[in-house]
Amino acid sequence: MMKELPLAKVYQFIEPGPVTLLTTQAQGAKPNVMTMSWHMMLEFEPPLIGCVVAQGNYSFAALHKTRECVIAVPPASLSKVVSGIGNCTGGDTDKFACFDLTPLPASHVAAPLIGEAIVNLECVVKDTKMVRTYNLFILECVKAWENPKLKDAPMLHHHGYGNFSVDGERIHVKSKMR
Amino acid sequence: MMKELPLAKVYQFIEPGPVTLLTTQAQGAKPNVMTMSWHMMLEFEPPLIGCVVAQGNYSFAALHKTRECVIAVPPASLSKVVSGIGNCTGGDTDKFACFDLTPLPASHVAAPLIGEAIVNLECVVKDTKMVRTYNLFILECVKAWENPKLKDAPMLHHHGYGNFSVDGERIHVKSKMR
Repeated sequence: MMKELPLAKVYQFIEPGPVTLLTTQAQGAKPNVMTMSWHMMLEFEPPLIGCVVAQGNYSFAALHKTRECVIAVPPASLSKVVSGIGNCTGGDTDKFACFDLTPLPASHVAAPLIGEAIVNLECVVKDTKMVRTYNLFILECVKAWENPKLKDAPMLHHHGYGNFSVDGERIHVKSKMR
Repeated sequence: MMKELPLAKVYQFIEPGPVTLLTTQAQGAKPNVMTMSWHMMLEFEPPLIGCVVAQGNYSFAALHKTRECVIAVPPASLSKVVSGIGNCTGGDTDKFACFDLTPLPASHVAAPLIGEAIVNLECVVKDTKMVRTYNLFILECVKAWENPKLKDAPMLHHHGYGNFSVDGERIHVKSKMR
């Protein structure tokens, strides 16, 4: 069961730069999911997230048209799924079925949450002005969920060509940083 | 000694989402450096990088005026330095001296490289249209350097409030992903 994550904490899961999964729900179609590593925080609260979804991605049309998506952060244990999703297209594959992911209903968007993810961020598209030039969407996270069973689960970070680092040691350095 | 890093490989050091250091060189002033975790790749080659530098950051004026900077990726061994730099201001601190960092001359920009970094990316500001709304600068990396002594050194990822994860295991999943 997912538990609500306060919006003020959303940045703590995007700022570390994990590989993410982006789900979309085109009308009359099955939900789709893509692997996404080009994203960043733009504001703490309400949480704004910039992300690149290229026109060549099958998810582009659904995201652009419905203006909704979910960003899910998968645990490192799903590395093969993450890579597999990044290597096929929703144009000919039902990825949720193919990779045995559990779609869960979201509360504010039609795109599904992913039951196996550490966190799920329900997002709406806030600004498309940079889509034409940079494939850059600005999203606002309107609702967030965390999976209590995966608290502090290591995330994946992509270094290119299927090379990932897995989160190792957690350290704390005394800080005034927000 | 830094070794040239092909521009086509720059994304491999930003896409994993590490904490970075951003150096700037305002005219007639000492070089400055800030800690930056809000950044993303926008294009492979020439490498385009989006990053947030807020008006409240002392580095903002230098970046905005000179339109040049260096993005350095520090190894995890520098966690205290990274945190320290994020907790003081160039307005009253000579951070290179204070944190014992080695400024090295860059080839295309006035801002210095950091001798202790894994990679240094010389960048010029390409687009400031999103600065007013999102504090978002679009940079183009024009020259890149890697430190052979720090090849595959673990990076830091910031989870908020001085909590970091350190890169652990490296894994490879067979992939067609670029």
